[in-house]
Amino acid sequence: MAVYTEVPDRELEEFVARYDIGAVASCKGIAEGVENSNYLLHTERGSFILTLYEKRVKREDLPFFIGLMEHLAGKGIVCPTPIRARNGLALGELCGRPAAIISFLEGMWPRRPTARHCQLLGDALARFHLAGADFTLRRPNDLSLAGWRRLVEACRPRADEVAPGLGEEIARELEFIEARWPKSLAVGTIHADLFPDNVFFLGDRLSGIIDFYFACTDFYAYDIAVCLNAWCFEPNLAFNATKARGLIANYAKARPIPPEEIEALPLLARGSALRFLLTRLYDWLHHPAGAFVKPKDPIEYLRKLRFHAGVGGPGGYGLDP
Amino acid sequence: MAVYTEVPDRELEEFVARYDIGAVASCKGIAEGVENSNYLLHTERGSFILTLYEKRVKREDLPFFIGLMEHLAGKGIVCPTPIRARNGLALGELCGRPAAIISFLEGMWPRRPTARHCQLLGDALARFHLAGADFTLRRPNDLSLAGWRRLVEACRPRADEVAPGLGEEIARELEFIEARWPKSLAVGTIHADLFPDNVFFLGDRLSGIIDFYFACTDFYAYDIAVCLNAWCFEPNLAFNATKARGLIANYAKARPIPPEEIEALPLLARGSALRFLLTRLYDWLHHPAGAFVKPKDPIEYLRKLRFHAGVGGPGGYGLDP
Repeated sequence: MAVYTEVPDRELEEFVARYDIGAVASCKGIAEGVENSNYLLHTERGSFILTLYEKRVKREDLPFFIGLMEHLAGKGIVCPTPIRARNGLALGELCGRPAAIISFLEGMWPRRPTARHCQLLGDALARFHLAGADFTLRRPNDLSLAGWRRLVEACRPRADEVAPGLGEEIARELEFIEARWPKSLAVGTIHADLFPDNVFFLGDRLSGIIDFYFACTDFYAYDIAVCLNAWCFEPNLAFNATKARGLIANYAKARPIPPEEIEALPLLARGSALRFLLTRLYDWLHHPAGAFVKPKDPIEYLRKLRFHAGVGGPGGYGLDP
Repeated sequence: MAVYTEVPDRELEEFVARYDIGAVASCKGIAEGVENSNYLLHTERGSFILTLYEKRVKREDLPFFIGLMEHLAGKGIVCPTPIRARNGLALGELCGRPAAIISFLEGMWPRRPTARHCQLLGDALARFHLAGADFTLRRPNDLSLAGWRRLVEACRPRADEVAPGLGEEIARELEFIEARWPKSLAVGTIHADLFPDNVFFLGDRLSGIIDFYFACTDFYAYDIAVCLNAWCFEPNLAFNATKARGLIANYAKARPIPPEEIEALPLLARGSALRFLLTRLYDWLHHPAGAFVKPKDPIEYLRKLRFHAGVGGPGGYGLDP
């Protein structure tokens, strides 16, 4: 939950008046997203999300994120559409922070994803990759190998506070993964953080993908690997091969997956598990006492990492090699 | 900001299906209210607030709160209306907690209340008192004299951590106020917590009063005193007599204020300042490290208390005695 910036009513009314969306009817801080302040804004014309970008999001990255949402929405992907102010710009400033108004997507994120959710996700992820293929802006993945090395170095001295031997284990994992990380897989615009709370459903329909603030230019198959981690483990952390097969089979119907991407999945999933282990570990070790946002448990991703490390090949996920 | 209970999507859908409000379209935890978990619920039929009552609200008080909202809404007061499920009940259970769906009120609460807001507030408060006069349920004010004594006893040993001499001062104040507390003023249903964040405005209109979870049966004039504290001090804690006069004059147009109520205002305002000082002090001294809700500064109400202690009579608020 996160509302870092309180927006006074007069400032809000002035800001909204720059858009062609009618007058403010109400504006409630919502408990979603940990990087930015988000409000659910009702105006005479409908519902919108007002986002104030807080310091964890780099200003220079905003044109990529806003441009990507506009690009995708223009291609019919169900994602938030930035609303342009009368001056033609989608990015403004409110309370000293970059701010944008984006369309509101109805839908609920699944607290307990089912195999059916995973099938719908696979299809949507592939369509997202296809729609982003001709997006011309580029953004390197801050949270790939180089970023992981920085995090390993920052966490290693105190990692054993969380689990004995963890400092050693993350360093060893990073070395293993670095030495084998693919170099020639297909690259495009990926979401890179497609967890269940970023995917909305209405009945048997996937109604929206949100939160593009980790999106970047990287391997398509890495995005699939993130989803394997985020969607295909049960609450007891057992891997559910049915969910994985459904996700991948439906993805492949829209974007056929080359064999080298399938082959790379165990390593990509291992890298992706290390990525979430490291960011959670960092937040766990560094969050200030009394912080609003409770850090997530890093151990969940340590266990997923170990699972992927023990998988011999794509067959370990129930996939044909 | 507060969302204490995460509601899984399936439980939510089943709960909402008991009402005649259409299917769930979206449901966002909102950062308002500190006692309960509140969600802004969109359904096919419109917007609603879903409230889960957490442990700080006593179950046995819920019929009073829910009944009061229904009573007031029936009398045309702009306040949330509890929606009854198909079984005729407005109070249900969700995730093991009492829960209700109430109508959503558009409007914004004023971050910087003006004299005009105070005028509109005075009128709405009087109409609220008149509309509640024939509400038949009763609820004693937990946070009047007896409650203050309990809080003074709980806070006194550590109060000096917040300000030197504070433990002595709150005990002395309580004694002074107890000895003089009125016994024969008009009693009825009061809101008892009518701070700016509980009053919505749209343009030049007061569009709603919310959060009846401190409502109780007590002196009408005590409610006016709470508003003097909550609305008529500037950010630098200077008392604004123009705001107070406007609030009271507009109140009196709808419900004439007997002279004994005007006469009692300094003492009631002093008691009300002590009440908010004590609850804030208690929360300040007792909130767990890392709690979601940041406690409010008790010193603000210590300064208001001292102001009222120094007022000779209603003339000190710019009122005719």
